[in-house]
Amino acid sequence: ENLTLNSIIMSESWVNVAAGSDFPIQNLPYGVFKTNGQPARCGVAIGDHVLDLAAVADAGLFNDCSALNGGACFKEGALNTFMAMGRPAWSQARERITALLSKDNATIRDNADLKAKALIPQKDATMCMPARIGDYTDFYASKEHATNVGTMFRGKENALMPNWTHLPVGYHGRASSVVLSGTALHRPKGQLKPEDAPPSHGPCRLLDFELEMGFFVGPGNDLGHPITMDTVEDQIFGMVLMNDWSARDIQKWEYVPLGPFGAKNFGTTISPWVVTTDALKAFETERPHQDPTPLPYLKDCNEKQYDINLSVSIAPEGGESHVVCRSNLKYMYWTIRQQLVHHTVTGCNMRPGDLLGTGTISGPTEDSYGSLLELCWKGTKVVKVGDQERKFLKDGDTVHLSGYCDNGSYRIGFGECNGKVLPSV
Amino acid sequence: ENLTLNSIIMSESWVNVAAGSDFPIQNLPYGVFKTNGQPARCGVAIGDHVLDLAAVADAGLFNDCSALNGGACFKEGALNTFMAMGRPAWSQARERITALLSKDNATIRDNADLKAKALIPQKDATMCMPARIGDYTDFYASKEHATNVGTMFRGKENALMPNWTHLPVGYHGRASSVVLSGTALHRPKGQLKPEDAPPSHGPCRLLDFELEMGFFVGPGNDLGHPITMDTVEDQIFGMVLMNDWSARDIQKWEYVPLGPFGAKNFGTTISPWVVTTDALKAFETERPHQDPTPLPYLKDCNEKQYDINLSVSIAPEGGESHVVCRSNLKYMYWTIRQQLVHHTVTGCNMRPGDLLGTGTISGPTEDSYGSLLELCWKGTKVVKVGDQERKFLKDGDTVHLSGYCDNGSYRIGFGECNGKVLPSV
Ligand SMILES: [Ca+2]
Ligand SMILES: [Ca+2]
Ligand SMILES: [Mg+2]
Ligand SMILES: [Mg+2]
Ligand code: NI
Repeated sequence: ENLTLNSIIMSESWVNVAAGSDFPIQNLPYGVFKTNGQPARCGVAIGDHVLDLAAVADAGLFNDCSALNGGACFKEGALNTFMAMGRPAWSQARERITALLSKDNATIRDNADLKAKALIPQKDATMCMPARIGDYTDFYASKEHATNVGTMFRGKENALMPNWTHLPVGYHGRASSVVLSGTALHRPKGQLKPEDAPPSHGPCRLLDFELEMGFFVGPGNDLGHPITMDTVEDQIFGMVLMNDWSARDIQKWEYVPLGPFGAKNFGTTISPWVVTTDALKAFETERPHQDPTPLPYLKDCNEKQYDINLSVSIAPEGGESHVVCRSNLKYMYWTIRQQLVHHTVTGCNMRPGDLLGTGTISGPTEDSYGSLLELCWKGTKVVKVGDQERKFLKDGDTVHLSGYCDNGSYRIGFGECNGKVLPSV
Repeated sequence: ENLTLNSIIMSESWVNVAAGSDFPIQNLPYGVFKTNGQPARCGVAIGDHVLDLAAVADAGLFNDCSALNGGACFKEGALNTFMAMGRPAWSQARERITALLSKDNATIRDNADLKAKALIPQKDATMCMPARIGDYTDFYASKEHATNVGTMFRGKENALMPNWTHLPVGYHGRASSVVLSGTALHRPKGQLKPEDAPPSHGPCRLLDFELEMGFFVGPGNDLGHPITMDTVEDQIFGMVLMNDWSARDIQKWEYVPLGPFGAKNFGTTISPWVVTTDALKAFETERPHQDPTPLPYLKDCNEKQYDINLSVSIAPEGGESHVVCRSNLKYMYWTIRQQLVHHTVTGCNMRPGDLLGTGTISGPTEDSYGSLLELCWKGTKVVKVGDQERKFLKDGDTVHLSGYCDNGSYRIGFGECNGKVLPSV
């Protein structure tokens, strides 16, 4: 059966997929979309199209998928129910959708009516938030990022706090302001504290991006009953690109002793297509060595992290986009499995569709740093954006994140994650 | 019209209300409840009874309340829709419910059928969460509490951080683990760091309560468009008691530099009845003087805080409850209005039903400190619980919060807010 599945996965689709597309048949990321006059529902990206899973369910093509209950979950305007159903449902759905889209499968391909209903050009679809996010948490799990920030603020000797190598440091974020790619955000106002003057209220001057990835929780756990390392694999549904916009000047003044607050809660941008852990499985690579060895509850026998090429580009108002950093998820010290397990160690309950952010993903080289704070090294150097220069973001700038995996035989991507900076209100 | 409303409010109800009840006709807190075989719906507490607002709406008694749309919102299993409708709906509902429950009003009183349907003994009702909480935030706004904690950890000179008198310090909390009074919680496990040894994983040894109040947001605001001081009054629906359970040993090791995380996310207990700002209006008193004068966006022309008597009791397993502290909301330095305005200053959007916690409410005297950490002064003294002694909480302890207002002519209370500590899993 594995052989069959593999040969199906490696086959091509009857839907045209351009070379270099983010969405070949090996990807099949889930999202939520709307079309004219019809309510939001779930779909899968294939090439330049969306396969409408509500239409597929209506055609009875999930009727024999017992773990999927016929696919009614896809008629909802969010993926939460599907996420809650867990690995058996995810596997059945992926296997069936792969089959339906495979070159040799005539079911939709040769049914003109159904094809017209179920296969929708992405340009005719408006993407929606993939899930109702109950809670959003952000981590701080790249050793390079934490070391860079620590060095800037506390010097090289005290760069990493003593807890950092023992646990994935995280903090609770704001779920209400997680927005979809394409949402423009006003530059935040807040309290700024000049060195030698009292604080004032005004627009943030040090507006930054943070290159992150987010991951969605599957079934979740009951309050008081932690998720453990041996079951965590089945608790992670999939991943998106994430820009954790940050107001560095507001953050600096407000964050002691309880952490970042207004500096982060004005907006967090995610990409609309959730790339599943099933699709990412083929792109596992070694994670960084962990020294000291984590406590047993955090010990991960699977010493893998996904190899995901990431980049950030900035497009000034009316101008073209220019890459300002290239990084990779594989640099992350703490894995997303360890982050989720640690999050629940005290008994904290996860609900389907909860979003966890990896934290800023910085690599070892100066061009791989995942924030302007690091790229301009606290304002001591400039970052080239085409023929312009930046230290922090200007009004009118659009920040684009992108990500893809490539294992030599095929490539899967994450689609769009962008947001424009509007002036302060 | 004001005169009429006042005289109605001062009148008594045809529903029997025992002397000293938390729920006289002047209170009318909203909650969500279930009875045998019927779905959750909204109600108002009156004496030992719940007035079933879905039944009142079904009887057509809100039909002429235009801002209430006939009261369909009360048939939902959460108060979010009602909270979203804002002050005009809240005022109409309060005026109508006050009238219906007033001694001289025969509408329900003399209609045996309707009365049997609409007036339910509280002992026959199971309370539910009053709202679906989208986001939960906790503040740190009692000067006494912040000074006590700061003195213990950083010495008297550095007790308050420089930002503390300029802004209400807050952090995002975990919405999924906000639970209703009566929910028992497992003692959390987590990383503990002894002074001279590496961290270990085990049950929290310094389990604490925090005496707080929570308040629910009304209509809310759009992302990027802050709530301002001149409209904030109409954004606060009402208040509950809140116990922000805290694991002090986990907190101490994990909280730098991004704030408390696992030490707080294993549970936060709230009381089921939401006492409205309309009911609390009669109990305004002076708030503490604010020096320095807050920045203009935080300047509150209404220099009031509610005068709410608060206490915490501990009942050891199988034993009676003993008061361990008495405090008052009036001691809070930052008002709840300032907290809400500051929360949105960067443009953070609030949704109806979002919950904000005041932070631990400590008063000026040693018996008014709102946490065991302060009451036992970091373990240097014992706290009497009847004939037992405590520094921190033991398994089997039940922590009760209570609160009431009394202005000499009447008393309104907040009902039950309790939770029992179960052993670690
Ligand atoms: Ca971040
Ligand atoms: Ca607290
Ligand atoms: Mg953010
Ligand atoms: Mg808590
Ligand atoms: Ni349990």
